[in-house]
Amino acid sequence: MGQVIFIGAGPGAADLITLRGARWLARADVVLFDALTDPALRDLAPAARWVDVGKRGFADATGQATIDAMLVRFARSHAVVVRLKGGDPSVFGRLEEELQALAAAHIECEVVPGVTAALAAAAAQQRPLTRRGHGRSVSLSTAMTREGHLQAGRHADTEVFYMAGRQLARLSRQLLAAGWPSDSPVCVVSRAGWPDQIGSDHQVASLPQATLLHAGRPTVVTVGAGAVGTGGAAPATVCLPTVTALQDHPTAALRSRP
Amino acid sequence: MGQVIFIGAGPGAADLITLRGARWLARADVVLFDALTDPALRDLAPAARWVDVGKRGFADATGQATIDAMLVRFARSHAVVVRLKGGDPSVFGRLEEELQALAAAHIECEVVPGVTAALAAAAAQQRPLTRRGHGRSVSLSTAMTREGHLQAGRHADTEVFYMAGRQLARLSRQLLAAGWPSDSPVCVVSRAGWPDQIGSDHQVASLPQATLLHAGRPTVVTVGAGAVGTGGAAPATVCLPTVTALQDHPTAALRSRP
Repeated sequence: MGQVIFIGAGPGAADLITLRGARWLARADVVLFDALTDPALRDLAPAARWVDVGKRGFADATGQATIDAMLVRFARSHAVVVRLKGGDPSVFGRLEEELQALAAAHIECEVVPGVTAALAAAAAQQRPLTRRGHGRSVSLSTAMTREGHLQAGRHADTEVFYMAGRQLARLSRQLLAAGWPSDSPVCVVSRAGWPDQIGSDHQVASLPQATLLHAGRPTVVTVGAGAVGTGGAAPATVCLPTVTALQDHPTAALRSRP
Repeated sequence: MGQVIFIGAGPGAADLITLRGARWLARADVVLFDALTDPALRDLAPAARWVDVGKRGFADATGQATIDAMLVRFARSHAVVVRLKGGDPSVFGRLEEELQALAAAHIECEVVPGVTAALAAAAAQQRPLTRRGHGRSVSLSTAMTREGHLQAGRHADTEVFYMAGRQLARLSRQLLAAGWPSDSPVCVVSRAGWPDQIGSDHQVASLPQATLLHAGRPTVVTVGAGAVGTGGAAPATVCLPTVTALQDHPTAALRSRP
């Protein structure tokens, strides 16, 4: 009987995994990974069998049940099974279901934390999520429910929304309805932590303008205190004031981390 | 003129730093570090000059200004200056002030994200912060303001409080006043991610009983959906139902990660 190690791979580039995660990968017999995992991580476990269980957005129940069953099956025939998840496994990682399935089968687990997308976006844009005096709380939430409903409020000094890319116009309206002033700062980052990451600055009322720029890319939206620039350049990422600026300089979106 | 690399060291054990952070440390000429940094991280930058700028809790203005000035001074005479911070630099890391000081001096910066304490506590206790259906939002906040006021509410399905260890009785009262049912689950973890980490389970009304167990240790308090156990054992950490259980088994608190 083997054990299952859940590892947060971080939000993108392979070097944002932790040393502990990398060391477990080196010992892995099997790695179950998601669609958004950087292929470069395979170099950390070249001898392991890599199994793609990728799913984007909210998986249906069947998909999750299949993954649960695969984890149990592999753990019964291999010493070290790694379940590699994008970001951090404890934040929007569907970790609960997989832990419960393994607990029911009496299989030992360990969870190695990782860098969740909100932190990677903040680092890349040099926008701390907390600020002295006026940024004491941070809320992480999905803008979209599984049923496709959008829920956005004003619960913290800094609100970070995951998986919001397709809903920026509705998100803007809900933020206004929740009491955010129309000129509240919003920072939108897609593919946070990847070489082709893009960041752009907006206000709550003009957030719909970000839709085109980040279309089809995993997107994190930061609203409030943590969206304000700190005066320094963030040289490694694109940072555009609005989509208008992008249209003025169409190549800007192609610049990326060196 | 050098550059300053802010690196999140993670919440404790040295192997929770990212590969990117470790690689930057290997290139560092100077490392400014905080009190809670694992001394084992020194092995990653043995040739660098290590400067302790440690401060616990809220530093006074002079302390922060001194650190800001040191960063600028070192960056003017060294190629790679690392500012190593516990957890993630963007979450309660006082990053804003240091970025602003370096921007004013036209010094180039990069921020490498890290694992913040809430994620490490969730991983170690195998308690995902988000849950399917009923755990869609997570709030990270400091229970204490700089002025020593306590602020705690009910803003998310899962609330995580940093730096709350000394205020558990007041935190319990404020959570009840904010509308949390008295039997809402609470998971308290001190020194999350360290070998001597302790975790304990409580309810909002009985949270004051956790005070003795975690006294004098950096403590993270998780309330609500994310505090519920997932059925699996978290074999590597102590997990006590109440302080009563600790008194029944006084050696339990001494067990730790292997």
